[in-house]
Amino acid sequence: MTESLEPDRRTAWRAYIEASQRLFTRLEDDLRVDSAMSFADYHVLVLLAEAPGQRLRMGELAGRLVFSPSRLTYQISSMQRRGLVTRAPCPDDGRGNEAVLTAAGLLTLREAAPHHLHSVRTHLLDDLDDAEVACLYRIFTRLGRRLTGVDDTAAAHTTAPGDS
Amino acid sequence: MTESLEPDRRTAWRAYIEASQRLFTRLEDDLRVDSAMSFADYHVLVLLAEAPGQRLRMGELAGRLVFSPSRLTYQISSMQRRGLVTRAPCPDDGRGNEAVLTAAGLLTLREAAPHHLHSVRTHLLDDLDDAEVACLYRIFTRLGRRLTGVDDTAAAHTTAPGDS
Repeated sequence: MTESLEPDRRTAWRAYIEASQRLFTRLEDDLRVDSAMSFADYHVLVLLAEAPGQRLRMGELAGRLVFSPSRLTYQISSMQRRGLVTRAPCPDDGRGNEAVLTAAGLLTLREAAPHHLHSVRTHLLDDLDDAEVACLYRIFTRLGRRLTGVDDTAAAHTTAPGDS
Repeated sequence: MTESLEPDRRTAWRAYIEASQRLFTRLEDDLRVDSAMSFADYHVLVLLAEAPGQRLRMGELAGRLVFSPSRLTYQISSMQRRGLVTRAPCPDDGRGNEAVLTAAGLLTLREAAPHHLHSVRTHLLDDLDDAEVACLYRIFTRLGRRLTGVDDTAAAHTTAPGDS
């Protein structure tokens, strides 16, 4: 195998991977200081808050977070100890388990969100013009669809920012 | 604080953060299967291979990887046990420590790189047109400079892909 990258693509890849890892570290540092939570805690709270009934099957949650089942169990147990979520049997079949957002979890998210969004704006978004925002959306929406195996044809009808 | 994001920016941010985390997980899975190493292992090998004399001070390496000193010590100890790096006193002052790439480390990197670059192309780069590559470069080069505190004026003379 003699795979290589053209110089422009290699430079862009390196800029993206290095700055992104630096950004995620910075955002997590901010979350810990402002709200005493990790990036994973925040992501779980957002996914549960957005889900119907503020609850999600453990398997669905693991898929959305790209976590292994054991990592998710550890994550949810930690959040359960802090009173942010509980676990309940699935109402459909009674076999599986669901993670359920508590009122304390929702209030914690509502308190953390403005600080986190401020970080996201300060570190990344406020520096981007509208064309760059649209470009970011296009690149990473396609990437997300490929990585989750969602059919591109079916998804092509979604409206992109800047299209309207 | 009543911070919020405009809908277009929120959508772009979510697409970027979710797809990027999914991508990094996928690339690490590929690295483990193809080359039995983690993303951090690969990153350390690349940074050392590119450094003058294939060696870097531990503090410099921690800064480049955005690792805490204790995380770096753990990482380098693990790579040392596998024969990929060694540690040596800094030649300048004899006080600090450097991580030094071994020949086995270089050969391991050379064997892993084509597989990793194939993953990067398959999952991300082959899908991007030249304008998107240039956009990715612009956004994340600026982000990296802001996060590392490099002066934008001094850095503005760098040529961007697509400029020539």
